[in-house]
Amino acid sequence: MRIHIQNHPNDGNPRATLEQWHEAVARAGDKGRGLEISIGHTEDEFSAAAGAMNALITSSRVVQNFLPAVTAPSLKLVFLTHAGVDSLAKGSFIPPGVTLLNNSGAHGAKAAEFALMAVLMLANHLPLFGDQQRQELWQRKLASSVAGRRVTIIGIGSIGGAIAQLLKGLGMHVTGVRTSTEPHPHCDRVVATSDLDKALPETEFLVLVAPLTPQTFEMLNRHRIGLLPAGAGVVNIGRGELVEQDALLDALDSGALGGAVLDVTTPEPVPPGHRLWKTRNLILTPHMSSGDPLTYIPRSLDIFLDNIDAHRAGRPLPNEVDLARGY
Amino acid sequence: MRIHIQNHPNDGNPRATLEQWHEAVARAGDKGRGLEISIGHTEDEFSAAAGAMNALITSSRVVQNFLPAVTAPSLKLVFLTHAGVDSLAKGSFIPPGVTLLNNSGAHGAKAAEFALMAVLMLANHLPLFGDQQRQELWQRKLASSVAGRRVTIIGIGSIGGAIAQLLKGLGMHVTGVRTSTEPHPHCDRVVATSDLDKALPETEFLVLVAPLTPQTFEMLNRHRIGLLPAGAGVVNIGRGELVEQDALLDALDSGALGGAVLDVTTPEPVPPGHRLWKTRNLILTPHMSSGDPLTYIPRSLDIFLDNIDAHRAGRPLPNEVDLARGY
Repeated sequence: MRIHIQNHPNDGNPRATLEQWHEAVARAGDKGRGLEISIGHTEDEFSAAAGAMNALITSSRVVQNFLPAVTAPSLKLVFLTHAGVDSLAKGSFIPPGVTLLNNSGAHGAKAAEFALMAVLMLANHLPLFGDQQRQELWQRKLASSVAGRRVTIIGIGSIGGAIAQLLKGLGMHVTGVRTSTEPHPHCDRVVATSDLDKALPETEFLVLVAPLTPQTFEMLNRHRIGLLPAGAGVVNIGRGELVEQDALLDALDSGALGGAVLDVTTPEPVPPGHRLWKTRNLILTPHMSSGDPLTYIPRSLDIFLDNIDAHRAGRPLPNEVDLARGY
Repeated sequence: MRIHIQNHPNDGNPRATLEQWHEAVARAGDKGRGLEISIGHTEDEFSAAAGAMNALITSSRVVQNFLPAVTAPSLKLVFLTHAGVDSLAKGSFIPPGVTLLNNSGAHGAKAAEFALMAVLMLANHLPLFGDQQRQELWQRKLASSVAGRRVTIIGIGSIGGAIAQLLKGLGMHVTGVRTSTEPHPHCDRVVATSDLDKALPETEFLVLVAPLTPQTFEMLNRHRIGLLPAGAGVVNIGRGELVEQDALLDALDSGALGGAVLDVTTPEPVPPGHRLWKTRNLILTPHMSSGDPLTYIPRSLDIFLDNIDAHRAGRPLPNEVDLARGY
């Protein structure tokens, strides 16, 4: 099989190298046999490789910008070195007969550490203390341990499950929210998305890690923000569009919510002068919760090789994306 | 035995109530029998109770301000509802024949969660992003998981041990520093304070949680800060005076260190205009890492009753403080 790695010149994420590929192949043993590799960093290099490639390892930006301009008759698999596919769901970028894969599973450890940090920051009033630091104001406010307190995680796939495990480890009461109510090993209970409104009034900390789909667009809307108890905290590491952002910022400015940690926003980058910079009790990070420069690409390549192995054996592909579903 | 609880009118910490006392006595079973209780909130109430009390539950502020003015011929035990005794080590506030106890053991869970949060904040560049938020600047910087990375904890008593356990749980390599090199169940290795200089060059994250004594005063001095690797992070939840503060702020301003989270500083409160407010890559919190308003007093009273039980049985008191040693 011919594998082509195509990096986009303007992507902010870490780029795959041939060295990382060869290391991944060495780790994979039998799964890595019989694979020819090429790599490209420009659109010309992509065009030159397109005719022969059977599988493409790349980002959604390449799929949107470069793939429509070429003919790739042998292409069977497109593997994204990221998890979110919402930008591809808007158009017909994947040719018929080509299977789309994402790197679900690569982000768990790093993203879970970020979410753990964010929940502890909310419990310890860090958004308030950030505001006080700007005002040069030293004023104590004590905080309680998170043990026994209630957190709700919307989206308990590979990242959400890893978050649940860490928060459960601190003794928190964890509610998972997903489309089915199948029990989850690290959640005290699982609630269907359709029952979210019943879970919100008893949610002290809300973590959003769902994929962005037409069903999840602004799922945390003004009505649902109003269902959270006074002083609740919100963490968003999914997509900015999961939240009706102005309603959230209103609830922070009014003091109805205790604080928020937002790694994702609308828009990104956040321009100078935007309301997000002025909202109180809010911590902003620049969409970095999940990407781990040391492990991101190696883990993605390991996942790709697992899928190649399944493909060659005719088994179902563990990371196949259903673009209609959105993840 | 006559027990007197004395709150100080100006203490910022939670105050004990008679209801909390009776709840603690109920939890204690046999240990709580035969104890008479009184409570005071003013200096007059303290003076009225002093003559008869056998044990006093209070803060170092009461010991310094109220105790020298009274005669307390029956007083045997003074129990502090906090851990740090550095302010009492400076004078002769404890009458001869009276044993001083602190509430070591009450802070572990809350303080460990704070330290876990602080290490994750340093790993995730939150001090940098706090500065960027002030500048309305959205600029990505990726971060790696803490798994496998090295943290050094100076002081592995009850709080430091709880911190080690949580960080070990994330897969970190934990070095504990204390006066002896006796192994610790949650540390990969234990280094004597005298060998600290050898551990610092391989310390990515340094957590200070030692008591303040003449031996630990400014133990993290300019020389030792210079031994930390480029980009290292510092957390202080012990006492501000453990650190040569201006040297630390110099290392943050120069970019030699990656960041710091300081819950304790010199002075406290930090006045407006102080250099601490202007230093970059620094997160300040107002001395709140350890106090948990929900569990602080109940846990302290449980610890007191354990010590009363040992006292009445003639056993060594688990929380006896050696003021000469300083903890």
